[in-house]
Amino acid sequence: MEDRILMAHGSGGKLAKQLTEEVFLPAFGNSLLAPLEDASVFSLPRGKVGMTTDSYVVKPLFFPGGDIGRLAVSGTVNDLAVSGAVPMYLSAGFILEEGLPLSTLKRVVSSMAATAREAGVKIITGDTKVVEKGMADGLYINTAGVGWVDERCQLGAKSIRPGDQIIVTGSLGEHGVAILAAREGLELNPEVLSDVAPLNKMLQELLETAPGIKAMRDPTRGGLVTTLNEWAETAGVAIRLKEENLTVLPQVAGACELFGFDPLYLANEGKAVIALPAEEVPAALKVLHRHHYGKGAAVVGEVTGERPGMVILETSIGGQRIIDMLAGEQLPRIC
Amino acid sequence: MEDRILMAHGSGGKLAKQLTEEVFLPAFGNSLLAPLEDASVFSLPRGKVGMTTDSYVVKPLFFPGGDIGRLAVSGTVNDLAVSGAVPMYLSAGFILEEGLPLSTLKRVVSSMAATAREAGVKIITGDTKVVEKGMADGLYINTAGVGWVDERCQLGAKSIRPGDQIIVTGSLGEHGVAILAAREGLELNPEVLSDVAPLNKMLQELLETAPGIKAMRDPTRGGLVTTLNEWAETAGVAIRLKEENLTVLPQVAGACELFGFDPLYLANEGKAVIALPAEEVPAALKVLHRHHYGKGAAVVGEVTGERPGMVILETSIGGQRIIDMLAGEQLPRIC
Repeated sequence: MEDRILMAHGSGGKLAKQLTEEVFLPAFGNSLLAPLEDASVFSLPRGKVGMTTDSYVVKPLFFPGGDIGRLAVSGTVNDLAVSGAVPMYLSAGFILEEGLPLSTLKRVVSSMAATAREAGVKIITGDTKVVEKGMADGLYINTAGVGWVDERCQLGAKSIRPGDQIIVTGSLGEHGVAILAAREGLELNPEVLSDVAPLNKMLQELLETAPGIKAMRDPTRGGLVTTLNEWAETAGVAIRLKEENLTVLPQVAGACELFGFDPLYLANEGKAVIALPAEEVPAALKVLHRHHYGKGAAVVGEVTGERPGMVILETSIGGQRIIDMLAGEQLPRIC
Repeated sequence: MEDRILMAHGSGGKLAKQLTEEVFLPAFGNSLLAPLEDASVFSLPRGKVGMTTDSYVVKPLFFPGGDIGRLAVSGTVNDLAVSGAVPMYLSAGFILEEGLPLSTLKRVVSSMAATAREAGVKIITGDTKVVEKGMADGLYINTAGVGWVDERCQLGAKSIRPGDQIIVTGSLGEHGVAILAAREGLELNPEVLSDVAPLNKMLQELLETAPGIKAMRDPTRGGLVTTLNEWAETAGVAIRLKEENLTVLPQVAGACELFGFDPLYLANEGKAVIALPAEEVPAALKVLHRHHYGKGAAVVGEVTGERPGMVILETSIGGQRIIDMLAGEQLPRIC
């Protein structure tokens, strides 16, 4: 087999078939993908269906703590999980740049397969396109996912009310800083690893324990502040954040200082934000603290009725300021 | 609003929100997409679920008879339809190149919306990423689709048997030649239009009328020959094609002659190939001929047991030759 991607790998001809049989099937192999029909057909338990999609264009493809493959599976799994769906099946669409080393593709595919196993989901349908050298940046991946949703599940930011509490499942900004460090050749000590991880098993247990949860989100692009502003606007409430309850690793804070970033706006890829009634907080934290990806969970703020649509940060020194969504971009191609 | 795509349109911040609210929501608007949660949640009728995905990188974005938007909806709808699924919901993931005129994006999105209406499907979840100038070719689109599959539906190339007949729903190679003409500035008279179209309504009626259908495919990349070779290999049968029964427009044949292409290998984006028992042929043709996209349907060949895995063309002058899959690429970035 050729050791680099050629235009013909995207042709639907023999080389395309070889790529599927030698790279994708061995890694993702399952009984639904194997027939290689135009679509995969499966059954879901009775209930509703959740569907989501994301394209991944992260630069660089490999970064401390993860890579585009782990990101492409985790991101879509997490989007389903925070919507109350049990993620089950994923599609994978690859756009490859001519000349990409086959070994790079294999490494990414193997990481996708490992992350899918961790999350308990199957990649059941896919597609590969190849574009000329200079028409992509190595490779881009799209994943779409479907999951099963319990009929009783009614998550949605609209139901957030004054008095509800806001939990974040851990420290903020690690994915953003890991990408930044990889891109800028920044040596942080200790190294900052991306938090990229599939949260579905933890969040599923959480929903069973705290069924009153109003809304969940994974604060990726735009970070925690963007998620909370969207919630405040949708629900017509204010959200007060307590700075002293937010966790930011010292190396993350240092890198942010250096580059003029704010960790509250940086992307996370393995954290969830949860809005829930105060009475369910103790049970929720108990579940989260038992999980590796939720060890750092804490209440970071609460919902109030005073200034609808606003997110207000109470600083450690007793001041407060309104934190709005950014117009622009802190760090492009973060995911 | 800016008149070109900026990196910040992919940020998850205010400009990203504006793009969603001013471009995507007005075009695709429906009650499932509107809440803009991380995933959309819906119900499907009792039965099985079909899922598929394709990325679209066609060059140029606009071509005679269609554009990347019509292609991105039709291609995914057709992949579901030929698998026996009733297409219902689509996701749309956009990768935009910095500097893309907003008017180009709007034109593509409007074409996607029109094609989705024609097909009776809804675009319910999506994502936009922006990459730097020179890192994509205008825009790429991924669509994934889910559909409902009747429990009784058992399509699959494995069940094709000697004696089964092969129907093609119309003339071959028009999409390929339309792209070629647009790319090379070739003036054909009359102009060749891409056949890109959603076939789901026609194929659904077909399946109800001819429930014994064994397999269906839309012969896109690699054309009719690639589809038939895959079937011959999967089912362990031979397929004999009669050249005189295949329809190719004179301008398509002429362009192929000029560029050294074979229309049997060129992509179609609005045709289906159908394998079915001989006794269902009359009823099937009757349904197909009633539909605009099936007017040219005809039996083009039959399945035999003689040389398993082979596709044999009986030429108009009485010869025969084996037609194998291509190793390489006739025409890259066709879809």
